[in-house]
Amino acid sequence: MTQKLILDLDTGIDDALAISYALGSPEVDLIGIVGTYGNVLLQQGIRNDLAITDLLGHPEVKVYQGLPHALKKDSFEVQPVSAFIHGQNGIGETVIPDSDREPENESGIDFIIDAVKTYGKDVVYVPTGPQTNLAAAIRKAPEIIGQIGKVVLMGGALTVPGNVSAWAEANISQDPDAADEVFRSGIPATMVGLDVTLQTLLTRKETEQWRQLGNAAGRFLADMTDFYIKAYETTAPGLGGCGLHDPLAVGVAIDPTLVATLPINMQTDVEGATRGRTIGDPDKLNDPRKTMQVAVGVDAPRFLSEFMTRITNVARSAKAE
Amino acid sequence: MTQKLILDLDTGIDDALAISYALGSPEVDLIGIVGTYGNVLLQQGIRNDLAITDLLGHPEVKVYQGLPHALKKDSFEVQPVSAFIHGQNGIGETVIPDSDREPENESGIDFIIDAVKTYGKDVVYVPTGPQTNLAAAIRKAPEIIGQIGKVVLMGGALTVPGNVSAWAEANISQDPDAADEVFRSGIPATMVGLDVTLQTLLTRKETEQWRQLGNAAGRFLADMTDFYIKAYETTAPGLGGCGLHDPLAVGVAIDPTLVATLPINMQTDVEGATRGRTIGDPDKLNDPRKTMQVAVGVDAPRFLSEFMTRITNVARSAKAE
Repeated sequence: MTQKLILDLDTGIDDALAISYALGSPEVDLIGIVGTYGNVLLQQGIRNDLAITDLLGHPEVKVYQGLPHALKKDSFEVQPVSAFIHGQNGIGETVIPDSDREPENESGIDFIIDAVKTYGKDVVYVPTGPQTNLAAAIRKAPEIIGQIGKVVLMGGALTVPGNVSAWAEANISQDPDAADEVFRSGIPATMVGLDVTLQTLLTRKETEQWRQLGNAAGRFLADMTDFYIKAYETTAPGLGGCGLHDPLAVGVAIDPTLVATLPINMQTDVEGATRGRTIGDPDKLNDPRKTMQVAVGVDAPRFLSEFMTRITNVARSAKAE
Repeated sequence: MTQKLILDLDTGIDDALAISYALGSPEVDLIGIVGTYGNVLLQQGIRNDLAITDLLGHPEVKVYQGLPHALKKDSFEVQPVSAFIHGQNGIGETVIPDSDREPENESGIDFIIDAVKTYGKDVVYVPTGPQTNLAAAIRKAPEIIGQIGKVVLMGGALTVPGNVSAWAEANISQDPDAADEVFRSGIPATMVGLDVTLQTLLTRKETEQWRQLGNAAGRFLADMTDFYIKAYETTAPGLGGCGLHDPLAVGVAIDPTLVATLPINMQTDVEGATRGRTIGDPDKLNDPRKTMQVAVGVDAPRFLSEFMTRITNVARSAKAE
């Protein structure tokens, strides 16, 4: 049975690469993208989702509107560091045509719930931004916890420090309350956090392969990702490339053997000095039933190989269409 | 080859159980105990080490004086919570005879270094308090890093919150600078932290078995540990017993298969809000050489069985002597 993949994105450069990875993966059927906020405002992300799926030759992918801000807030502004890393437009200031499509009328939250009702265990839900949409769907229809196939989320940091503070990772820090609701809900989830995503490095050597394809899709992917690599040279000078955060979550959703995982019941700290930290729930430490898995090791060479093969194939096919 | 075990203790109820576990383990030769501060003052801990080894029928175990306070401090006072958990005398207010022995004249630091020079890879060093003595030995003779067999330390918390703050575990928090020096030194070390020690629970059902032995050693172990279990009922009401922190480190030193470990290069935060936190070193995340292992899973039933067998044997033998 082909898995039904839903992406929940704040698109974002590595979100764009996650879309590309998904479209290059015959194992999954990308049944929809739900927009969220984070790297960019909700509306900018949705604009990017529509434009990118068009450019990659997949205008059949439906895009839904999620929530525009955290559960306990009434607005959202993009952080300056997000604009520095992803560009003001989220895709590294690359210029690609607007789609003539619009997002769907159904809300992203209802789409999530309906998809789980329709496809059940075949649904793989991959949020690569804040957990706001998923938390809202669980609040509205808690029965999806036991009906969904699995959640594979990009976010958090368990065995390494955070990237917005010593303890908090960027996606989780956008809405720690939502993340805590999701983590404690019992929904089967794999956390793909900085523990592993900072081990997956892409360099200009790889992006040049896309540019050499000689088409609009290849140039877009190369130019956009070079912007990201350049930002990393400032924010993480010792790393030697850019982390492939969001695509790794898609990779793990499709092939869990790419990572080694620790079964553990997690929480997100919502009170005190460490608000936004993802950590084991001490009250469930001795509960033999573990609802979450945290990726703590990754086969980086194999992932990078899959990443290049799949994305290059998508970009190459886009030319022919 | 019998492993040469050195314990580095702030004795302490669970330190006393660690001594008992070691003495009940034919796989290792306990060549010395180095005193440290923490649960009690240095001198109280050394008094306890001498008295306990006497009571258990092992007056041949040598006891050495370590350092009385953290590397960057000039004094140490016992925290009220330590006195609450371990009693003012460290052994749950039980009364056992003072030894007529004295600690050795050689300093604990020199003893560590000499033992490594003499026994090399056969040395297993188990600190169950702060890392001050080991850090001092490494400062004085850094060549022991490559010469020692291994370090198995009780301390820290990687995947669960701390126990003196949301981020810091008690032993590490006594001297975060020393812990950071040890962790970054490259010495081969296994961290046995709250991640696993809070999964190893002892209850009054087990301590009653010691009391039933009908001798002084059995009564001492039972009374002392019941004091500890009672303190846990206040500090961790939901747990249902007491954690076997220090004995688990000895158990893992003898049989590494008791735990599942994550290979990772660690640091201890010494600056900022999270001072005292043990976490992966992001600068060495992509270094394929991992000098540390962190225990993230434990076969608790098997450990508890080993624990009861070994300690009961020691207590029973003490009667005959």
